[in-house]
Amino acid sequence: MIIVLRPQATAAEAQDILARIEQAGLQPLHMPGSERVVLGALGDERVLAGLHLDSHPMVESVKPILTPYKLVSRETHPHDTVVHIGSGESTTAIGGTALAIIAGPCAVETHDQMLNTARAVKAAGASALRAGAFKPRTSPYGFAGHGEEGLKILRSVGDEVGLPVVTEVMDTADIDTVAQYADALQIGARNMHNFALLRAVGAAGKPVLLKRGIAAKIDEWLLAAEYILAAGNPDVVLVERGIRTFETATRNTLDLNAVPYVRQRTHLPVLVDPSHGTGIRDLVAPMALASVACGADGLLIEVHEDPEQALSDGAQSLYPAQFDGLMRALAPVAAAVGRTL
Amino acid sequence: MIIVLRPQATAAEAQDILARIEQAGLQPLHMPGSERVVLGALGDERVLAGLHLDSHPMVESVKPILTPYKLVSRETHPHDTVVHIGSGESTTAIGGTALAIIAGPCAVETHDQMLNTARAVKAAGASALRAGAFKPRTSPYGFAGHGEEGLKILRSVGDEVGLPVVTEVMDTADIDTVAQYADALQIGARNMHNFALLRAVGAAGKPVLLKRGIAAKIDEWLLAAEYILAAGNPDVVLVERGIRTFETATRNTLDLNAVPYVRQRTHLPVLVDPSHGTGIRDLVAPMALASVACGADGLLIEVHEDPEQALSDGAQSLYPAQFDGLMRALAPVAAAVGRTL
Amino acid sequence: MIIVLRPQATAAEAQDILARIEQAGLQPLHMPGSERVVLGALGDERVLAGLHLDSHPMVESVKPILTPYKLVSRETHPHDTVVHIGSGESTTAIGGTALAIIAGPCAVETHDQMLNTARAVKAAGASALRAGAFKPRTSPYGFAGHGEEGLKILRSVGDEVGLPVVTEVMDTADIDTVAQYADALQIGARNMHNFALLRAVGAAGKPVLLKRGIAAKIDEWLLAAEYILAAGNPDVVLVERGIRTFETATRNTLDLNAVPYVRQRTHLPVLVDPSHGTGIRDLVAPMALASVACGADGLLIEVHEDPEQALSDGAQSLYPAQFDGLMRALAPVAAAVGRTL
Amino acid sequence: MIIVLRPQATAAEAQDILARIEQAGLQPLHMPGSERVVLGALGDERVLAGLHLDSHPMVESVKPILTPYKLVSRETHPHDTVVHIGSGESTTAIGGTALAIIAGPCAVETHDQMLNTARAVKAAGASALRAGAFKPRTSPYGFAGHGEEGLKILRSVGDEVGLPVVTEVMDTADIDTVAQYADALQIGARNMHNFALLRAVGAAGKPVLLKRGIAAKIDEWLLAAEYILAAGNPDVVLVERGIRTFETATRNTLDLNAVPYVRQRTHLPVLVDPSHGTGIRDLVAPMALASVACGADGLLIEVHEDPEQALSDGAQSLYPAQFDGLMRALAPVAAAVGRTL
Repeated sequence: MIIVLRPQATAAEAQDILARIEQAGLQPLHMPGSERVVLGALGDERVLAGLHLDSHPMVESVKPILTPYKLVSRETHPHDTVVHIGSGESTTAIGGTALAIIAGPCAVETHDQMLNTARAVKAAGASALRAGAFKPRTSPYGFAGHGEEGLKILRSVGDEVGLPVVTEVMDTADIDTVAQYADALQIGARNMHNFALLRAVGAAGKPVLLKRGIAAKIDEWLLAAEYILAAGNPDVVLVERGIRTFETATRNTLDLNAVPYVRQRTHLPVLVDPSHGTGIRDLVAPMALASVACGADGLLIEVHEDPEQALSDGAQSLYPAQFDGLMRALAPVAAAVGRTL
Repeated sequence: MIIVLRPQATAAEAQDILARIEQAGLQPLHMPGSERVVLGALGDERVLAGLHLDSHPMVESVKPILTPYKLVSRETHPHDTVVHIGSGESTTAIGGTALAIIAGPCAVETHDQMLNTARAVKAAGASALRAGAFKPRTSPYGFAGHGEEGLKILRSVGDEVGLPVVTEVMDTADIDTVAQYADALQIGARNMHNFALLRAVGAAGKPVLLKRGIAAKIDEWLLAAEYILAAGNPDVVLVERGIRTFETATRNTLDLNAVPYVRQRTHLPVLVDPSHGTGIRDLVAPMALASVACGADGLLIEVHEDPEQALSDGAQSLYPAQFDGLMRALAPVAAAVGRTL
Repeated sequence: MIIVLRPQATAAEAQDILARIEQAGLQPLHMPGSERVVLGALGDERVLAGLHLDSHPMVESVKPILTPYKLVSRETHPHDTVVHIGSGESTTAIGGTALAIIAGPCAVETHDQMLNTARAVKAAGASALRAGAFKPRTSPYGFAGHGEEGLKILRSVGDEVGLPVVTEVMDTADIDTVAQYADALQIGARNMHNFALLRAVGAAGKPVLLKRGIAAKIDEWLLAAEYILAAGNPDVVLVERGIRTFETATRNTLDLNAVPYVRQRTHLPVLVDPSHGTGIRDLVAPMALASVACGADGLLIEVHEDPEQALSDGAQSLYPAQFDGLMRALAPVAAAVGRTL
Repeated sequence: MIIVLRPQATAAEAQDILARIEQAGLQPLHMPGSERVVLGALGDERVLAGLHLDSHPMVESVKPILTPYKLVSRETHPHDTVVHIGSGESTTAIGGTALAIIAGPCAVETHDQMLNTARAVKAAGASALRAGAFKPRTSPYGFAGHGEEGLKILRSVGDEVGLPVVTEVMDTADIDTVAQYADALQIGARNMHNFALLRAVGAAGKPVLLKRGIAAKIDEWLLAAEYILAAGNPDVVLVERGIRTFETATRNTLDLNAVPYVRQRTHLPVLVDPSHGTGIRDLVAPMALASVACGADGLLIEVHEDPEQALSDGAQSLYPAQFDGLMRALAPVAAAVGRTL
């Protein structure tokens, strides 16, 4: 950690801070420059955080050297983590050579809707089924999902077509219920900083898909994953789903830079959700191809048997035939970057 | 609601959509232009949302006319809401002529720290006490607060100095506990889109301070407040605390435009938190003055008896003497805009 | 154009605005709703802009229906524009089936540096050479380029290796000089809203590469292109190079959503610059593959014979061997989406 | 400057970099930590920039210690700069105790419009007159100003009412013409990074009002001012006018944090433009009060004798009576923070 002092800091104040660094068990460094005195502290920076040097009135800035996360870092765990969801024959691996394609409607609406969509995505080659029973909605007047009734439909349809199922959990009070039906728990973008929820899914015994918050820096996203690993759950899958920027032509700005960036820094697998990342049906397929080309381990795609009648997110849901076309277009791109479908 | 069709939409498709608008009980309008056909639907747009016209492949865009919120709107409730927190002599009103100044440390650390700080802010003129017992922390390794033990300290210190107390609740599972000790519940910026929590505090029987999310548009912030009112709780106070932008010189960008903007659109009172809004101790006082000058109903200010030793947010916490100086500087500015301290 | 009136607008005020719409030669529409009166105006919205209805105190909002650009729109010009740069054998087409790969150092430094780099990128398959002689630099103390001397080196090296050359122009005063040496003029991100420069390159008789501004919405980028076409120059190539967001892990956030989005809306070709779009050498190759996968017509890539010695942008410049590797990796991805190198 | 090496950097590579630091005349520092080797270089960091250490493949990151600007820094020039515009009796000082209030229409339209507006703002207490003759417009079809004819009107009206005049210059080719008529040259937000223009106004012999770019970090804004000072012109006034963020309720997000922040770092005076900073007429007055409360040296306000007929920016222009009301409301706020009107 590097500590830059203000110009008016005295030698005594510098010595006082150096003494505090040494007392914390770290190695202090004194670098007096012509315009600023710079101090250093070598060692575990998380210990140093307890000194709160950024609060000192004579400290201008504090610059950490090490990443704030450990368990998710590729430095401490160089090999790729592969997360398995589901059980028996329908188990899907996320993070290996084969791409994971998780598809389905935004929300569980009816058994028929789920079954028709599930059959279509399975036939086109999807490896898992997604749909929401608890839906985060910006307005209190929007359709908020069917709750446990929806979970039952999802589970039964998943079993019928032979696909593992992924669904969102929004409240610590619902985790046991959701975990009873789902093969993997999804933390939505709005809850990436719901730390109570992160700790709780860390103890739930199911793999977790962690979506990036719409205003989350990559380091914050990795720290959210660190929460889950620190709570004892190593099976975390990161999902890039677009960030909020000044651009309003698309619903979000899909930050594909994040895909190769996090793959260099973490051993966890990374998926991309081009449905939320664009919010526009016609952009989903090209951005799905781009996601795989830059190294994503798979995709999360919204597909609805009849998007015009979807209760939510219809504008970004693919028609089954479009999803089938996407899967066909994806095959040669996957092969071009050494992946399989 | 205005529905713009794609250039290739046929007359039959336009008629079909008009029929769906009419079936929903709304008045349809047909506006054929030279380059686009535009349709209109007059009536309650929330009914129309159920038609999901934005999902239609021949719809280019949908433009709502009315605001998506109702209960929080000044149109349906023209007079200012005044929210009272606390009981007996120490009750404080937020939203009237007198400014509400809620001050205290980021976190409850010890009884002595709370008491010293509480006495200092009370002496300087604060009208309520704030401190966190459940702390949201970006890193799982940060100090996360003392939980119920912290709530007990906060309550006892508030009673001792005669100030109502405000504290954050982060999880639906903690609401009953927090409501037992606190006079008002704070929803933090990271939880503004935690809809389960919004609904739950809507039923908790205590006033709620609702911080704006770091990436929340003003309409989304007002819809979050709508969740709480729709759940039966009319006592909501909005808190602007800075948004995330490209600027990194300050911790957040305090969006003071939002203060007069929301005051025109809602009857709910609005506070500003310049501590989180800047993240820099030396900027807190000037931005506090600016907040009051543009119409805020009060302030949320972090003060610590010894910021260098603070367990969190020390860099943005005022020394007690600085808070006292701020209150003295604030008095003439408040008077200049017709407010009292 | 849709005009939403404020709740307090009178019937007389509505009639007055309708009369103004009619006088402007457009068809007025009156849509009285339960909470708002909505007016419409059918016809050329650019005429209507002259009425300045958004300035009217009783107008709440104005919602345009049509795009603000015409000449660059695919609606008025459905077929892809192909822009040719260079002359004779070394001519390169941008916008056809073959991808255009424009590579070279950030800045012209010396003849040897240019020649070595040019030979390397030509050998690896680049179709044009890029380098700056006039460099925009955030600091007045940075290396600002060699000016005309640099242009001479660039031209002579381009001729020697047989590649057309592209370089930036920053000031209307330099256009004649730059156009004398370059095969295409680049407008940098910082000058996308330099309207005097846009008009001037519109009259310069050379193709223009128009980079997107770091805070430019897609519509603004297309309007900047419209400036150049309106000034008589149809040969405009759009370049996505990343936008500024809250994310600081990368230099910019490459907005690949923009690629399929603009390809649907404009007939002009679109390149991507993953060097500026990421700012990190190790991310350039994966993002180059992603760019082609989502439909870009080519790439702009910074390559330096010795990045450690580069006078600018060394951290994002590829080593020649890395560029060669990128070209090899690109070939199967290009083939997968129906393009050639 | 602090240089963090990658984990895989060898001791020889570290030694090589230390040798380069020493050869550049700076003092090298070696700080081997448990997970990273950190190097330091003490001395003038601008010399060090010439080493391009960020390009080195074994360098993970480079952290500067000193600000990149010098001439504009309060460290090298502790006392406030006061900039005088105009001559004779109508001279106005920007940066002293008295606030500078620069008001007028967005664009020069006609002599009558200018004269009526100028008389109104003068009567209400404005200290200078503003209006554009060269207008930056997002669309090539917008009103771009009357050019030199507009400058003549502005000059003659300024002389008639006794107010100095400020107007924008957009192109190096126009500087001599604009400087002939104007008392101060304005650089608009879109040109803050037009470095050729910055250098040219640095040599033009007139004070410069430098608006912050819509995506400019504060450091970049100060570096743009540094360009002008480095070119020999010490009379620079900074103007905060809002930045682009995700919030679309207002035209821009006025970043008032920047006012006290830059006042601490630079000796140059700072104005605020709440007209562009909000884009909404009803928000201009409250944000003007806030600007003065947090330390601005004055305001730039758009006023039009008849905003409904304004050729540009009518929606954010005040009616003369509103401007008069603003000036009356401003007086006690100014007094409250020790300023005069």
